[in-house]
Formats: sequence, structure tokens, C-alpha cells
Amino acid sequence: MSPARNGKPTLAVVGATGAVGTVMLDLLSTREDVWGEIRLVASARSAGKKLVVRGEEVEVVALSPECFDGVDVAMFDVPDEVSKEWAPIAVERGAIAVDNSGAFRMDADVPLVVPEVNPAAARRRPRGIISNPNCTTLSMIVAMGALHAEYNLQALVVASYQAASGAGQPGIDALREQISKVAGSDTLGTQPGDVRRAIGELGPFPAPLALNVVPWAGSLKEDGWSSEELKVRNESRKILGLPDLRVSATCVRVPVITTHSLAVHATFEREVTVDRAQAILRDAPGVVLVDDPANGEFPTPADVVGTDPTWVGRVRRAIDDPHSLDLFLCGDNLRKGAALNTAQIAELLAEELAEG
Amino acid sequence: MSPARNGKPTLAVVGATGAVGTVMLDLLSTREDVWGEIRLVASARSAGKKLVVRGEEVEVVALSPECFDGVDVAMFDVPDEVSKEWAPIAVERGAIAVDNSGAFRMDADVPLVVPEVNPAAARRRPRGIISNPNCTTLSMIVAMGALHAEYNLQALVVASYQAASGAGQPGIDALREQISKVAGSDTLGTQPGDVRRAIGELGPFPAPLALNVVPWAGSLKEDGWSSEELKVRNESRKILGLPDLRVSATCVRVPVITTHSLAVHATFEREVTVDRAQAILRDAPGVVLVDDPANGEFPTPADVVGTDPTWVGRVRRAIDDPHSLDLFLCGDNLRKGAALNTAQIAELLAEELAEG
Ligand SMILES: NC(=O)c1ccc[n+]([C@@H]2O[C@H](COP(=O)([O-])OP(=O)(O)OC[C@H]3O[C@@H](n4cnc5c(N)ncnc54)[C@H](OP(=O)(O)O)[C@@H]3O)[C@@H](O)[C@H]2O)c1
Ligand SMILES: NC(=O)c1ccc[n+]([C@@H]2O[C@H](COP(=O)([O-])OP(=O)(O)OC[C@H]3O[C@@H](n4cnc5c(N)ncnc54)[C@H](OP(=O)(O)O)[C@@H]3O)[C@@H](O)[C@H]2O)c1
Repeated sequence: MSPARNGKPTLAVVGATGAVGTVMLDLLSTREDVWGEIRLVASARSAGKKLVVRGEEVEVVALSPECFDGVDVAMFDVPDEVSKEWAPIAVERGAIAVDNSGAFRMDADVPLVVPEVNPAAARRRPRGIISNPNCTTLSMIVAMGALHAEYNLQALVVASYQAASGAGQPGIDALREQISKVAGSDTLGTQPGDVRRAIGELGPFPAPLALNVVPWAGSLKEDGWSSEELKVRNESRKILGLPDLRVSATCVRVPVITTHSLAVHATFEREVTVDRAQAILRDAPGVVLVDDPANGEFPTPADVVGTDPTWVGRVRRAIDDPHSLDLFLCGDNLRKGAALNTAQIAELLAEELAEG
Repeated sequence: MSPARNGKPTLAVVGATGAVGTVMLDLLSTREDVWGEIRLVASARSAGKKLVVRGEEVEVVALSPECFDGVDVAMFDVPDEVSKEWAPIAVERGAIAVDNSGAFRMDADVPLVVPEVNPAAARRRPRGIISNPNCTTLSMIVAMGALHAEYNLQALVVASYQAASGAGQPGIDALREQISKVAGSDTLGTQPGDVRRAIGELGPFPAPLALNVVPWAGSLKEDGWSSEELKVRNESRKILGLPDLRVSATCVRVPVITTHSLAVHATFEREVTVDRAQAILRDAPGVVLVDDPANGEFPTPADVVGTDPTWVGRVRRAIDDPHSLDLFLCGDNLRKGAALNTAQIAELLAEELAEG
């Protein structure tokens, strides 16, 4: 590992021009500045482009083995196959790789890290690679980790309300276009298929998203499960260190631009109370409790988009099971769900490097 | 009980001018015609208005005790307090009352009937009143009843995706207006509160519904539960005859005009298999199975709105519990969720009257 120069480590952002990369540059410009040089990397298509980070223009360089020379931490905000090939190259050149893609998440020798939940896992990285969880898992895991620490989590039943931007910029574009096409109508949404006919092109979704909800995200895996649903199960187990955690998820896309929401039914070993659960969530770093329905207070995606925390509300104890809580959470899938968690992991590494 | 005239019983539709009443007139005009006279009743405000049913204009009469004279079956599609006062009056005058409101649903001496699930309950009606369940419960109960008959249901965890029309015409109007206000923007839905500021008036919802989801439906009840969530629990127990059924529901409004959807995690006494569960649902009256995600086939509200059945898809066995199924359902809240189920109950009564 190369020593930190100017007392501060060098960072490479691979995929700086993408949706997650763009949020990353914003975060790097607004969070406490722990970095020396910041190098921006993308495909050859983007080489020479200038992007602003920390108030300064930086020229984007094309991905190559050499661009990792002298780099301490390399973030990868690129498609799976690019990470798969290039993260090991960055490691060979002396960097620690923090990967936002799905390429390594379930590999036994790659830690899957959420700094509020399992920061110590970041220190055991035999391959020099740390993975960032999937955005749907990240939308709930900080809150669930805090409750687990007190109550010992046994089972999760999750239904998601996932935003269009989970499918990247094409998802956002498709939803905006579909909404323009259904706006102004007094009849659409009342006859079978009328919305489908009105919007024409579906974009990246398998059914209309405007005036609709779509019970599908990701690709088809075994026994009818979607890849997104399996990620929620498998990544939650790995992050919480609970290989026997029972998880059922149904992932549904909703006509929201950005911020995923989840209805969660969580069952614990210990009995729960609403007061104590609220207190845990109120005190948990990275969590904000908004739970006063008498005054219309609960989180909604449109109200919390663009913010960092996991927002939790509607905390109830299951009427028929004193070991279960029902709650509703929202988290920005491009911030905590992607760029923010990656930035936080990189900052853990910067601290570790500073310790020597 | 007055004898059926012309061999066919007389029906009164109280609330014929409302949202549910309007769908009812359409159903009465298109379903098998089992009725003699059909009398249309509403408030004094609507008296004299002419509405079309079975292709003929019928004059609306104002609600009065006399309008039930000679009536065999009186449907109530009116607010709770109107049903509460007037259903007993209709019974006094010799009618059987079928009530779509929440006035009597949980009364021990009033059956809560879903013809595909508990038709026999309609015959025991000590007060002469039969209640129609809440629309969210109705969106899933036919499918759950079919699975329960084979597997013996123990617990339900439900997350809803409820349409704007569950809040009546004002709900529909508010959503359409909000969508017009957010259409065409390239930025709304990316900063906290930007959608809220853009739409201004919220209408009947406690938060923006366009480009958003709202984890609230109904009024606040004990321990943070909403009335809608308690209805799902209590009405499911009563309809299925399972007083110990464990139910947790989180009810969430989504920007859909009409048709409620639900993600359901159902736990049974017996072990389940996907193949058998699909076969049960395929054969269940009133249920249509659409479950082929490899070909993009699952139900969505925009595709099934305006139809009668409960549509079921995404049938999966819980990976960590062979006794549990996860599935996704859609049902039109104004049809099966309200008018259709009431019409079906009334038809059971017409049959009973014909038997003598
Ligand atoms: N969207 C989300 O909610 C979300 C959440 C969590 C994780 N993620 C993951 O984060 C990663 C990035 O997602 P995104 O939504 O930001 O995607 P995106 O908008 O498509 O951006 C992709 C980035 O990767 C770069 N890239 C593509 N191919 C490359 C190559 N061969 N060599 C070098 N750079 C290449 C692109 O550079 P050019 O501009 O030069 O093409 C661009 O900077 C993905 O793995 C995604 O699964 C996304
Ligand atoms: N919307 C749903 O998804 C849904 C689903 C299930 C059950 N329900 C229940 O069905 C009932 C009707 O709902 P809706 O959505 O159809 O309501 P709505 O559109 O407001 O219609 C109300 C009806 O009740 C009549 N009415 C009101 N006050 C009256 C009075 N004092 N005397 C006589 N008639 C009176 C109205 O007649 P005028 O036109 O003369 O005022 C109108 O016909 C409610 O109990 C509702 O909770 C609704």
C-alpha cells in the first residue's frame, strides 16, 4: 500500500461520470475533506472531460492500470463486469478497492460493509476489496442493525416501494416521459390497459410505471424470485452476520423518482416495545425517527429525497406477536443506497491509513 | 319478508348517485338480471334525477322509510352514519339490508360475507343486515380463502399499494391535479419537499401522492395503527372464521387511480409448494393467476383496473420457511372491493328468496 502523500491519502473515483459518480463528487465536495489527490476515472469516451470536485475542475482520465499508481483507495461506481475486471488490477497496483457494483458482494473473502453496522468487517479484506451493498438492502439495514443490537433479529418480511432511479438515468427518463403522457387525462387508469396504450414505450421497466406499480425489479432467479429480492435476503444476512436469518422480500417499483421505501415486519428473539424501539431508532447514528401520525408525521420519499439518513416511521408492535415490529422506512437510493455508503467506507479506510 | 313479485325480488340501491353506486348500476346492467323492480335512492339533493340502469331511465327518490315498502333487498352504498340509521329502518319495513359501509362490519350479530369464501354466513343474519368487507381486505381475501381451505392459514403479513379512489372521487381528483402539476419537470422529486411545494393543495391525503407514496390510510387508532390496517386484520379474521389469525398490515397509498395491490406473506399450518399453490389459485372462482415473470407476466393495477377478479402473481415459497408463501395481488377497489361483492351478496339473497 502506498503511503499517504501530504499526510492525506489519494483517492480514485472510477465511474465519476455516472449517476452514482455524480452524487459521489457532490459528497466529496461537501463532506469533511480527508483526501489528498482525487483522481477521476471513466471510460475512454469521457477522457479529457472536466468535472468539478471540491470546487475545482479535474480532468477525467481513461481507465488503465497506470491510473491506479499511487492511489490508496479506489472507488468503483461502474457496471458489474467493469468492476470484476478492474478492481483486482487496482489492488495489484497498491490500492484498496471499494466496489459499488454487485461483482463481489457475496464472495466469502470480500467484506460487505455498512459503517454504522459492521465497520470492523472493513479491516478484514483478504483480496483488498470491500463491497458496498445493494440500495434496497441499504435503505433498511442501518435501522435494522440498531434494533438487532438490542433485540436479536430472527426474521424479516419486506415489501419495497422502489424508485425509478434504481434503474439508473434511463429509469428516471422513462418515468418522467410516462407521466407527461398520462397528465391531463380524466379517464386514464380506469380501464384495463388504457395506461399501457397511452404511454407506448416502456423504457427499462416491464410494465407501465406512471399511474401503476410494478412487482418486479432485477432479473429472474430460481423459483420465481427476482435478483433484487434475493439480494435483500443474502446481503442482510451477510451484513448482520446472521447466516440463519429468515428473509422474505417482495420488490415492487413505484412511480417515484428517487428514494426507496420499505414496509418491514421484523421478528426478534426478545420482546419489543414501541417506546424502546423508537428510542433505539432516535439514538441510532444515520437514522432519523419521524413517527407522529396524529400530526401527519411519517417519512415519505418525496419529503426525504436528497438527504443522507434512513428515515423511519409508523413504528408499531405486532398486535398478535410481542416479538415483532412493523415499520416503514425511506432512504435515498443514490445517497445512502450507493454513493454515501461508499464514501463512508472510503473514509474508514482513510482513518485506518492515517493511524498508520 | 315480502314475497318476490313477478317471480323476481325487488331491489333498492341506496346511494345510487355515489362512486360505488355508479359502479353498482353498471354491474346491475351487465350481470345476469335476477331483479324485479330496481329502486334508486339517494339524498333529497338527488331526488328527481334520472339514472340509467338495465338500459332504462329510473328516477332517483329521496331516502325515506316508505321507499323500503315492498323491497326485498336494500343495498346501502352510503356513508357509515347514513347506513347506521337507515339499514335498521329498511329491515323494519321488510327488507334484508346489505351494507357497504363500515357501520356494522364487526358487530357479532351481523355476518361479513364474501360469496366465494363464506356464503353460508349470509343465511345467519339475526338483525337482517349483512355487511360487505372493506376494499383492502376484499382485494386479497378470495385468494387467501382458497389457499386457507387447503393449507390452514396461521398468519398474514401484508403491505398495501392502495389507489387514490379508495378516498372516493376527491382522491381521484387530487391525484390527477397533482400529476398535472409535476408533469414536464426535469427536476421535481430530487430535493426534499420539492414535490410538496409544487403541488400545493394536498386534497384528502396527508402528503403529496404524485411522485410519492404515503404510508397512511384512514384514521389513527390505538398504538399507532391506522383504521385501515386494523380493518385488514379484524375483517380477515371474521371472514375466514379464524379468531386467532395473526395479522400485521402496513397500508400505503400509491399514485394509482383505481385498483389496490398487496404484497402478502402468508404462513400456513401445512407445508406449501409453489406448483400446488398456483393450481389452487388457478382453479379458485373469482381468482386469475398471472404468474410467468420470465415473460414479464404478473398483475399490475393499470392492467387489471375495471375487471372483476382478484389477480394473483409472483407466487413464491419462502426460502427459509416451507410453510410460507409470498405473493402479489391486485383487485379493483370499486368493483370486487365494493360494488361487485355487494351485488354478489344480494344475488345470494335473490337465490334464497327464489328457493322460497
Ligand atoms: N442507480 C442506483 O440506485 C445504484 C445503487 C447502488 C449501486 N449501483 C451500482 O453502481 C454502479 C454504477 O451505477 P450508475 O447508476 O451510476 O451507472 P451509470 O450512470 O450507467 O454510470 C456508469 C459509469 O461507469 C463508467 N463505465 C462504464 N463502462 C466503463 C468502462 N468499460 N471503463 C470505464 N468506465 C466505464 C461510465 O463512464 P462513461 O461515462 O465514460 O461511460 C460511468 O461513469 C453499478 O454497478 C450499479 O449497479 C447503482
Ligand atoms: N370508494 C371505495 O373504494 C369504497 C370501497 C368500499 C366501500 N366503500 C363505502 O361505500 C360507501 C359509499 O362510498 P362512495 O365512495 O360511493 O361515496 P360517495 O361517492 O360520497 O357517495 C355517497 C352516496 O351516499 C348518498 N348519501 C349521502 N348522504 C346521504 C343521506 N343523508 N341520505 C341519503 N343518501 C345519502 C349520496 O347521495 P347524494 O348524491 O344525493 O349526496 C351518494 O349516493 C361508503 O360507506 C364507503 O366507505 C367505498
